[in-house]
Amino acid sequence: MDLKKFVKPFIVPPGDQISLKKDYKPDFLPEDIKIDKDNADELLTEGIETLAEYQDKLYAQNIYALLVILQAMDAAGKDGAIKHVMTGLNPQGVQVYSFKQPSSEELDHDFLWRSFRALPERGRIGIFNRSYYEEVLVARVHPEILAKQQLPKETLENHIWKRRYEDINNFEKYLVGNGIEIVKIFLNVSKEEQKERFLERINKPDKNWKFSAADVRERGFWDDYQDAYEKVFNNTSTEWAPWYVVPADRKWFARLAVAAIVGAKLQEIDPQYPTITEQQREELIKAKALLEGEKD
Amino acid sequence: MDLKKFVKPFIVPPGDQISLKKDYKPDFLPEDIKIDKDNADELLTEGIETLAEYQDKLYAQNIYALLVILQAMDAAGKDGAIKHVMTGLNPQGVQVYSFKQPSSEELDHDFLWRSFRALPERGRIGIFNRSYYEEVLVARVHPEILAKQQLPKETLENHIWKRRYEDINNFEKYLVGNGIEIVKIFLNVSKEEQKERFLERINKPDKNWKFSAADVRERGFWDDYQDAYEKVFNNTSTEWAPWYVVPADRKWFARLAVAAIVGAKLQEIDPQYPTITEQQREELIKAKALLEGEKD
Repeated sequence: MDLKKFVKPFIVPPGDQISLKKDYKPDFLPEDIKIDKDNADELLTEGIETLAEYQDKLYAQNIYALLVILQAMDAAGKDGAIKHVMTGLNPQGVQVYSFKQPSSEELDHDFLWRSFRALPERGRIGIFNRSYYEEVLVARVHPEILAKQQLPKETLENHIWKRRYEDINNFEKYLVGNGIEIVKIFLNVSKEEQKERFLERINKPDKNWKFSAADVRERGFWDDYQDAYEKVFNNTSTEWAPWYVVPADRKWFARLAVAAIVGAKLQEIDPQYPTITEQQREELIKAKALLEGEKD
Repeated sequence: MDLKKFVKPFIVPPGDQISLKKDYKPDFLPEDIKIDKDNADELLTEGIETLAEYQDKLYAQNIYALLVILQAMDAAGKDGAIKHVMTGLNPQGVQVYSFKQPSSEELDHDFLWRSFRALPERGRIGIFNRSYYEEVLVARVHPEILAKQQLPKETLENHIWKRRYEDINNFEKYLVGNGIEIVKIFLNVSKEEQKERFLERINKPDKNWKFSAADVRERGFWDDYQDAYEKVFNNTSTEWAPWYVVPADRKWFARLAVAAIVGAKLQEIDPQYPTITEQQREELIKAKALLEGEKD
């Protein structure tokens, strides 16, 4: 599978000013790929096997970690992408962290505090299901959320969003510089498709529990969110931690793209099984002699 | 698959005094099962599919958690069991925590502190790769480890092991009483098989990195560990959190048994997809009307 076709069209070029609406279509399909819904499953299974091999090496090498950030509007398929792309990887090397509304304790800290605690250990793939980007998304769309954060007046009134973008870029530069590689994926669903998926959750009794009336209220802020997302991409897609805007109206395609983006980054990390030093080799020889000389 | 055959022979009956050596053979196979190494894979795959279904419900229901504690001598197959039994489950619902030597910060706390922090959230399966049981195993076999814990004199000198067993039993009773169900599994490998596996790690270059000379030193304390484990089983296999001693000389059998023990506990928890209340149903109807009435 040629990963580039699933990766290149979706990157937000660092430094560019993109238009979410014009440049990224939720139902986009690369013209020259010969896949459809029917053979996508097979391709995804192959992709996951490749991911599993990389992950095994990443874990054994224990030098790099990979942080995958997933952001999206409701019902865009974050949970499904995690389930369908990450099932098949060894859970010992995968940590999924789902960020909910911050607790009082979390609100009493700086806005990156709870994310620091949830970062993947070396050798692991960490998945943030939502992330600190909510702090420049939901907190921007709903000013009352920002107001609850007890921030100093000078922080609030001094270009807060611009400074949060800077804080985030510097945080991510620090992480990458310390071996925690990052990919950031936005599952780009259309407003029409979200409606269809909401109606499905309402109409199918076994999906009712996945639906909350609050989701429809939040949908009322659609344009504000699209605007906030566009600003995020234009300000935080960096050379060291680029954003990918993945067409998400077709679940099968979005999952393939997520697998490909994660796979391409692992390919770039190129983890290797550790080799042993000369001293370790001597210890092995001694250990072998000890074992073979045992009297049972 | 009749789970009982893979579960019942291995439980340590609460209240009994068992002999690890006499009652639990590392190469035991139930007489009446018609499986061998060749068809074990297929059976395991089926078992994992069942686990995945239970896990999906456990996650959706979000009331119970399941804590799986894995203990064993080196090279008994803990990592392999996690990899082969848990790969295939949605990582969003599985948390694996591998306990290493405690840090200075951890040593400055009570012996259960770091385990509390690593407990699975509701709806998740948490796997402890090693656990607080090391505090009545390695700390008992190596008294210098206990000495480093800065314990009050009266704690050290007043039946410390008996009291730790009590502390653990009460801790586990508290967890189960709060929805965190527990299964505790010991992978019972023989001294001879451990030797074979160590030699394999030494002789195969691609397995060298998995071997540490310290493992052979630790093997020198084999009998002390067996004794410490036996005491653990006789003192901490309780009605609410029983121990299972799984024959581990055959990897394929041990993995089936682990899947069966975890599966039997999930069967007992019997998680269900949530249903919605009458009030929630009314909200759904309103939300549906809102969505359908939208002017695009």
